[in-house]
Amino acid sequence: MRAPIYGDVPGYPVGSTFESRTELSQSRVHPPPQSGIAGPSKEGATSIVLSGGYEDDLDLGDVIIYTGQGGRDPVTQRQVRDQLLTLGNLALVTSKTKGLPVRVIRGSGHKSQYSPSHGYRYDGLFYVEEFWHEVGRSGCRVWRYRLVQYDIPDAPTKGQVKENKADYPRPHRAVSTILRVVRDTQKAREVKSLYKFACQVCGVVLEGPAGPYAEAAHIRPLGMPHNGPDTLDNLLCLCPNHHVLFDLGMITITDDLRLIGYSGDLITKPGHVLNQAFLQYHREHRFHGT
Amino acid sequence: MRAPIYGDVPGYPVGSTFESRTELSQSRVHPPPQSGIAGPSKEGATSIVLSGGYEDDLDLGDVIIYTGQGGRDPVTQRQVRDQLLTLGNLALVTSKTKGLPVRVIRGSGHKSQYSPSHGYRYDGLFYVEEFWHEVGRSGCRVWRYRLVQYDIPDAPTKGQVKENKADYPRPHRAVSTILRVVRDTQKAREVKSLYKFACQVCGVVLEGPAGPYAEAAHIRPLGMPHNGPDTLDNLLCLCPNHHVLFDLGMITITDDLRLIGYSGDLITKPGHVLNQAFLQYHREHRFHGT
Repeated sequence: MRAPIYGDVPGYPVGSTFESRTELSQSRVHPPPQSGIAGPSKEGATSIVLSGGYEDDLDLGDVIIYTGQGGRDPVTQRQVRDQLLTLGNLALVTSKTKGLPVRVIRGSGHKSQYSPSHGYRYDGLFYVEEFWHEVGRSGCRVWRYRLVQYDIPDAPTKGQVKENKADYPRPHRAVSTILRVVRDTQKAREVKSLYKFACQVCGVVLEGPAGPYAEAAHIRPLGMPHNGPDTLDNLLCLCPNHHVLFDLGMITITDDLRLIGYSGDLITKPGHVLNQAFLQYHREHRFHGT
Repeated sequence: MRAPIYGDVPGYPVGSTFESRTELSQSRVHPPPQSGIAGPSKEGATSIVLSGGYEDDLDLGDVIIYTGQGGRDPVTQRQVRDQLLTLGNLALVTSKTKGLPVRVIRGSGHKSQYSPSHGYRYDGLFYVEEFWHEVGRSGCRVWRYRLVQYDIPDAPTKGQVKENKADYPRPHRAVSTILRVVRDTQKAREVKSLYKFACQVCGVVLEGPAGPYAEAAHIRPLGMPHNGPDTLDNLLCLCPNHHVLFDLGMITITDDLRLIGYSGDLITKPGHVLNQAFLQYHREHRFHGT
């Protein structure tokens, strides 16, 4: 089996169409010939097909409520057993905790205004915003996922932002603003693996249902005007609490890796050498103490 | 002094123009007659004016790199002292930690393609994505803020998402995906105030430079398909770590407020009564244990 591809598959841009599951499978956009969810459970789901197999699926265009797999009678296709958090269902949870993009393929079998009239169409990258379980119409437990499109510019916060625009000053409706956006990169995933998701400040590991959760902090931030690089010598593996405190400038690090704002030393692994220029940048630009 | 207004000021939609600072001030879109930053430091900045006062300001349209106030010679307008993290500078940090929207008014004095040709124009709501300090061209410390527009649909993650779209499969460039978006609401701010930002699971308070940081968790989530309400009986004040674990379903709460997945009871204040139907919803739909 070839390594799974996360993100767009070269040669198949958004909008690519496929006559059949066989053609779709050969493209590597969604390799399995039948299953609706592709990708190893420990690494994360690469893609899903929305094709009408589950009556509870709901397609809102840039948001999809997707039902997990399993527990159906192969003949009647009725849900006869609880779905388990294994295989593809677990892979989608891994995608959520790792922040990986999931390709969405829509098939004509799902009746919605967003489905193609025939065959299958690759409709771009979504992220798993949340997951939960519920008792479906069948009386059995199903796993459900809220996927949000993010390869169109306005997707990640679309509903909330629009709502906010109009409604912020009005007190009677729920409105949200953005407090924090945690982003992830390939190198971020590497530093988290290196530390097995243990915080380099406090050592804590937050255990989730599909493996542990941690965040990677860029010492010199990415993006304008800092333009720090996405490299291991500019990255730390932190728990969310210490990520917040590091970004707020309440904790920083000396050149000899002592912590300022927290007692003790930064936890480091052999071979993970931090760039002293980036440490200095954090102390000089982000740290608030003296 | 009247209470500060966060968000749009009724009667002044995006694009409203003003001939002068006096007219702008009378509108309440930006009350102070001279200062570039409005709003109390403890409550948060309501608005900023980008009008060319600071040579280091940078206007990229939906992203603004904004310089704090203070430290200038009143006659020469040169930066002669370090800026302090007080007054408006602190107010912008408070806006960041509270997740409050900041009105941006552009004046013709700032030379950029986004400035109006004369007078002032209200250009919508931005959020403070990050803040830092640096030594400006003058040799003195200035505070700097990265403001990102979020009252247009594509703003909050614009650069990253576009970059991601094209680049995810390529290994050679930094690309980010979204791991977590923390949103905030009026009621979220209330529950955090009620608990003085102490986590209801572990009691920790994360101290930031403009006051403590906490996150509010909706027990029954907002939005489709859960449609939980933004009300105090559906909200908890949590540290980021326990927010992650609560949302991942590793911690839940019994009807008599014992914690499952963490030893002890939920910390509660008198008068903060949680809705048992929402607690039940969390146990039944989000919790993974038995």
